[in-house]
Amino acid sequence: MSVRFPSALLTLIRELGRLPGIGPKSAQRLAFYLFNRPEEEVRDLAEALVGAKTGLVRCPVCFNVMSAGQECCAVCSDARRDRGLLCVVEQPADLLAIERSGEYAGLYHVLHGALSPMNGVGPEQLTIDTLGRRMAGLREVVLATSTTVEGEATAHYIARLLAPAGVAVSRIAYGLPVGGDLEYADEVTLGRAISNRRPV
Amino acid sequence: MSVRFPSALLTLIRELGRLPGIGPKSAQRLAFYLFNRPEEEVRDLAEALVGAKTGLVRCPVCFNVMSAGQECCAVCSDARRDRGLLCVVEQPADLLAIERSGEYAGLYHVLHGALSPMNGVGPEQLTIDTLGRRMAGLREVVLATSTTVEGEATAHYIARLLAPAGVAVSRIAYGLPVGGDLEYADEVTLGRAISNRRPV
Repeated sequence: MSVRFPSALLTLIRELGRLPGIGPKSAQRLAFYLFNRPEEEVRDLAEALVGAKTGLVRCPVCFNVMSAGQECCAVCSDARRDRGLLCVVEQPADLLAIERSGEYAGLYHVLHGALSPMNGVGPEQLTIDTLGRRMAGLREVVLATSTTVEGEATAHYIARLLAPAGVAVSRIAYGLPVGGDLEYADEVTLGRAISNRRPV
Repeated sequence: MSVRFPSALLTLIRELGRLPGIGPKSAQRLAFYLFNRPEEEVRDLAEALVGAKTGLVRCPVCFNVMSAGQECCAVCSDARRDRGLLCVVEQPADLLAIERSGEYAGLYHVLHGALSPMNGVGPEQLTIDTLGRRMAGLREVVLATSTTVEGEATAHYIARLLAPAGVAVSRIAYGLPVGGDLEYADEVTLGRAISNRRPV
């Protein structure tokens, strides 16, 4: 007497389990949660999924996420931006984080990932090939990829790639986070903070 | 110059963030993951959500999850089950876990939760009220709610509720997990394992 879940439930658990960071147990828990929610709420989620997938595209210039039907994204179409500056980020969320800092007013280039040969991510899987074609009129390219191994490798790769273009290439600064306690900083970060010290 | 995500993306992040265990950061990460997946994959997930919500109902007898359109669930409709035994569990997943153990052949009653006054879950939010009407012909009720504070409270509540019915009520055994190392057992579990010791 083998009792199994109904197929509609198994399908949902399988689909939820395909999402990153959601294992079989979490998928099951989510499926039961949704089973016990009002139908309207589940339909809202389903519609949001399809709506986001069909209503969003990558900006043809910088590859930031934007609404379908527009010519280019809000940053690229903004005439007040400094078009001599280009900031390279891994994800649209990184672009937004830099915007929130209020310290940058140039353009962006979204890679949609970082180089990771171990995971099969080479330059072809990212938007690196189009980057070279955006060098005309630029004063500086700011490499704002993560300070992870993959982010560092990506920054190095792009710096070497852009060297012949004769544009200044910079990397975001390493150092202590603002409000950070020296005692709790890891030694690599602390070492960088000391070697990158600035006159006051 | 405030740059924001497109509304379709914000909607998806908000809807994903309503799921239990998925915070704002995870919701954003999932949304970008889905943005970069093929449309078919996202549609499959959306269809699985609506399919599960519209295709699944609670068994009218035991409240286990079952396909819509059936009279009662696979357990309740199985003539080979021992109808003198009733096992009370919190969730359909617990029912399945007990089935996998192969040690139980009776019927079930799924509460869909445990009593938790702090979270506004009283007997009315669970399927406790119908439990009393299932006592006819029963030899024994096995309380297999979790061994958490809420599960214990729920087991006690039901035991007291069923006392007038004159049916034997039992609780699943506490003790060491099979393959468990004594050294790593917490003292409460170890204490229960000793006080519940059995002759060999």
